Amino acid sequence: MTQTFERKGMSLRRLLFGDPLSTSQLIHERLTKVKALAVFASDALSSTAYATEEMMLILVLAGSGAAHLAWPLALAIAGLLVIVASSYHQTIHAYPNGGGSYIVSHDNLGQVPGLVAAASLLTDYVLTVSVSISAGVAALTSMAPPLYPYRVGIALVFILVMMILNLRGVRESGTIFSIPTYIFLIIMFGLLATGMVKWIAAGMPAPLPPQRHYPVAHTLTLFLILRAFSSGCAALTGVEAISNGVPAFKPPESKNAATTLTAMAVLLITLFLGVTFLAHQFGVVPDEVTHETLVSQLGRVVFGSNTLPYYALQFATALILVLAANTSFADFPRLSAILARDRYMPHQFSHLGDRLAFSNGIIVLALASSLLIVLFGGTTTRLIPLYALGVFLSFTLSQLGMVARWRRVKGPRWQLKALVNGVGACVTGIVLIIFALTKFVDGAWIVIVWIPIFISFFLAVHRHYVSVAKQLSLETYGDPSPIHHNRVIVPIGDVHRAVLAALHYARALSDDVTAVYVETDPTRTPRILQKWEKWGKGIPLEILPSPYRSIIAPLVEYVDRVNDPTRRDLVVTIVLPQFVTARPWQQLLHNQTALLIQMAFLFRKEVIVVNVPFHLHDIA
Amino acid sequence: MTQTFERKGMSLRRLLFGDPLSTSQLIHERLTKVKALAVFASDALSSTAYATEEMMLILVLAGSGAAHLAWPLALAIAGLLVIVASSYHQTIHAYPNGGGSYIVSHDNLGQVPGLVAAASLLTDYVLTVSVSISAGVAALTSMAPPLYPYRVGIALVFILVMMILNLRGVRESGTIFSIPTYIFLIIMFGLLATGMVKWIAAGMPAPLPPQRHYPVAHTLTLFLILRAFSSGCAALTGVEAISNGVPAFKPPESKNAATTLTAMAVLLITLFLGVTFLAHQFGVVPDEVTHETLVSQLGRVVFGSNTLPYYALQFATALILVLAANTSFADFPRLSAILARDRYMPHQFSHLGDRLAFSNGIIVLALASSLLIVLFGGTTTRLIPLYALGVFLSFTLSQLGMVARWRRVKGPRWQLKALVNGVGACVTGIVLIIFALTKFVDGAWIVIVWIPIFISFFLAVHRHYVSVAKQLSLETYGDPSPIHHNRVIVPIGDVHRAVLAALHYARALSDDVTAVYVETDPTRTPRILQKWEKWGKGIPLEILPSPYRSIIAPLVEYVDRVNDPTRRDLVVTIVLPQFVTARPWQQLLHNQTALLIQMAFLFRKEVIVVNVPFHLHDIA
Repeated sequence: MTQTFERKGMSLRRLLFGDPLSTSQLIHERLTKVKALAVFASDALSSTAYATEEMMLILVLAGSGAAHLAWPLALAIAGLLVIVASSYHQTIHAYPNGGGSYIVSHDNLGQVPGLVAAASLLTDYVLTVSVSISAGVAALTSMAPPLYPYRVGIALVFILVMMILNLRGVRESGTIFSIPTYIFLIIMFGLLATGMVKWIAAGMPAPLPPQRHYPVAHTLTLFLILRAFSSGCAALTGVEAISNGVPAFKPPESKNAATTLTAMAVLLITLFLGVTFLAHQFGVVPDEVTHETLVSQLGRVVFGSNTLPYYALQFATALILVLAANTSFADFPRLSAILARDRYMPHQFSHLGDRLAFSNGIIVLALASSLLIVLFGGTTTRLIPLYALGVFLSFTLSQLGMVARWRRVKGPRWQLKALVNGVGACVTGIVLIIFALTKFVDGAWIVIVWIPIFISFFLAVHRHYVSVAKQLSLETYGDPSPIHHNRVIVPIGDVHRAVLAALHYARALSDDVTAVYVETDPTRTPRILQKWEKWGKGIPLEILPSPYRSIIAPLVEYVDRVNDPTRRDLVVTIVLPQFVTARPWQQLLHNQTALLIQMAFLFRKEVIVVNVPFHLHDIA
Repeated sequence: MTQTFERKGMSLRRLLFGDPLSTSQLIHERLTKVKALAVFASDALSSTAYATEEMMLILVLAGSGAAHLAWPLALAIAGLLVIVASSYHQTIHAYPNGGGSYIVSHDNLGQVPGLVAAASLLTDYVLTVSVSISAGVAALTSMAPPLYPYRVGIALVFILVMMILNLRGVRESGTIFSIPTYIFLIIMFGLLATGMVKWIAAGMPAPLPPQRHYPVAHTLTLFLILRAFSSGCAALTGVEAISNGVPAFKPPESKNAATTLTAMAVLLITLFLGVTFLAHQFGVVPDEVTHETLVSQLGRVVFGSNTLPYYALQFATALILVLAANTSFADFPRLSAILARDRYMPHQFSHLGDRLAFSNGIIVLALASSLLIVLFGGTTTRLIPLYALGVFLSFTLSQLGMVARWRRVKGPRWQLKALVNGVGACVTGIVLIIFALTKFVDGAWIVIVWIPIFISFFLAVHRHYVSVAKQLSLETYGDPSPIHHNRVIVPIGDVHRAVLAALHYARALSDDVTAVYVETDPTRTPRILQKWEKWGKGIPLEILPSPYRSIIAPLVEYVDRVNDPTRRDLVVTIVLPQFVTARPWQQLLHNQTALLIQMAFLFRKEVIVVNVPFHLHDIA
């Protein structure tokens, strides 16, 4: 019966997650620059699918005319990207073993800044999944509008599939992962090139008026412009990925990683500016009525609706966004495992599953991002105010950490290096403040409230583990005197085979065995006594009256009476008969008294509870 | 710590549910006819609040003009009520100890008919709560339409409060319960009298045209008329209540109960016909736009909007409907307890809680009726097609049972008595068939599918308990030879105080103790061996390799190797260290390996698992 259950469970498990892998199979694949670009850049590059749109959605609050401000804002964000990339260039060389923000901040700034970075990163990994999947689904529903009402369901299915694949242990397999990234790059550059050719062929006309009219709902204030800028900063998410992954590069690791970072920054800037420029020229603005994405509209303007290149664009966009989400499925469990090893997260996060993946981290990420998708209705725009705050917090801390590092380790031209990182820290710090202020009411407050909660969780976990280690330590361990006396108590509710089985085992444990009967219904007592006379083997039976029909209270009181915690050589063992039914549902047909008794004595010292299973077979 | 938890839990419990009651406090209050009418008739009388409306809602499908058919249908239902009441009159005299349909059918027709009656009754008790509460909330929202969107939430709060009150052990306290019933009767008769006076004063005009126009959506077929008739039959629900409760009457019980039944039938017929007649005369028809109930509309027509009598009518209606729901909170747990005692339901349903209420039945009823409220959007009309089918099924069975009884016991004028019950059985049987056919697609199919499932559950439970009793029986019990050898295995994951505490206990159990270490990471093994050398007390330590990092599989394999189920004098005991944290959330920071090991060995014979708790204290 159970054997079959186990086997069934096992084969379903294997079907979904594959055969278990031996620890010795844990090998690393080293990546060439071309493959590494694909693996590490998908997150950053994919944000060009929504960054321009999110920026414009804020601008058009001041009327459709304000949409043209997207272009100067995009230029400012490109400048910001240059500064951030330069700063990370230095991190790559300083931390050839991988310089994630947590490690850099923890090493150079101390515990709390390190945990702030960790909390921001983990939060942003969750948001990366939610935002990327929502945007990916939006790319699909733009192509097939009837699917729009099902976007939450589709997004959850994507996350579920990604979770299963990652539990199977999909590692950053360069070859497979580089295909969608390069397809996306080819199609996006095709879009930009075709668009530019059309614009030039038309005689480089002045920008077309916006295709959809938005009334002026707000005045065009500096605050509104900064809010739009903050939305656009979503384009920068994922830039830190390469600096985390330096050891995955072929040697010389740092040099190759730095080159790849430069290539990524150039591609990202080109795509982001290109999309923004063409949208501006062709009068494409976000459409909150049809829910069609800006890139989809641009694709139809440039390639024409229902053309092969247009569909390819949409599929490639969806694909790279899913891939971007998948990078979080590698990063979140890895950082959780590091934090677990440093005793800031439950140590279950550091366990390798039988497919060599950090299963718990993968499951928690899938659950958390699914929850966000449900709470925010699978809408990218609603999630954006929560996104990027954590990214900029970790950017700032990691660069401040680099400044502190230069001041400590010095080395050639350290002042210049500290200046580069210092400028990076200042600029990202300012963006962080702008972001927090302009997005506060839209949702950034959630992250601002959440991060301190998360950090106090880290610290509480840490305190617990440190305290446990101290309590378990054998340093001052004094050998206890051996137990000479085991007082065994067998609570009974009736006299039948299961009770006699428990009694049988109890007699093997000790000569001092007493049965106790909690008398909830005094009319049954004579019958119990009569049966005990016959089957009780002369073992004394205590009757405990219970006028309020509680089983537990009289038992606890009795055990407290016969126990003596001051006698180190005495232990009390409670032996309980426990039914084990052939089918799980049948277990519900029996009282859970054994469980309740176990719970009641769990916290009492020097009392051990033993369940003696009695196996019921099913009806033949 | 825990003591405080327990105490906190205890005081919250007492606040909500009151102090525990001793079994000897279980006394019965005997009811006068006046009080008994209030207690037992609330369910039946309250159905006049919605029966006319539900009938008309079907009729107006054939256009507003068809609403006038409500009057002849109401007369037919009144005739049906006379037949059913006469039939139950006889049951009351035949079963002075209470003749519920389950008992009457089980006694006279056999197991399966008894279970059919039981399944129908339990189902209808759940529906009584859902329907009455929905209708009660509708009475409130008719008065305060802005509350309409919150009807599901309000209904759930009502059920929750009723659950808490019943867990406290509100018994059918005649005095308290008679007040709302008599207020309702006074106000309803006031409504009817005032309405009649108005109508007579106006010179008894012909009926007004319907106040709201309904287009002709269906032809007025016989099927539609029978469908409306079926909806109106909801008025008959609750008629059987008195026959269940004969022992609660003051002596002479049967005579008093019979008189009360007659009074109830007269009141019910008067109210039902009165409401239907006045609605007909004043052109009041259900309003699916404002969601105002028919009785509320009638109240405003007769008393005027915003008058004190109108508000009193609505409050009294809501109150008696809640009271009607409350009768199910007495009946459902009581019948469940009877079924549990007969081993058709899990025996937990027969446990008296510490307030002398059948707590499990109360909780299950609250959950099931809440679920129906949520699934059917708290709308009476959607629940009506499920309702009353069970009532008529149990009516029919109980009367067939009475016919069988007369044929068996005979007695004076038994043929006449059998005829009365026979007519009752035929008529209710025909109504049952009409109901099932006309309401099938509207929802009756759910009940038709559900009842056989429920019955097979009863039978499966019964088979299990019978089989368990046989397996536990000591009739052929042969005394096993005593256990001479207890082989104790202590699985360890490290060497620390908790492991040594388990080892300490293990040595008290047996001289044959072996520690085993499942080696998931071979690099840790030398350190473990070195520590064991120092602290292991010379106890042998087995190293079990586990290349796939599973803890359970190598352990199960090892135990299978050292165990010998053929040796009756040998038992294997696994002693596990188990962390008990000071705060419950901290428990999540530890592996649940002990639990997994326990689960893995639960089904293996002759292996006993013992947890030795190690109490971690919180940080000072």
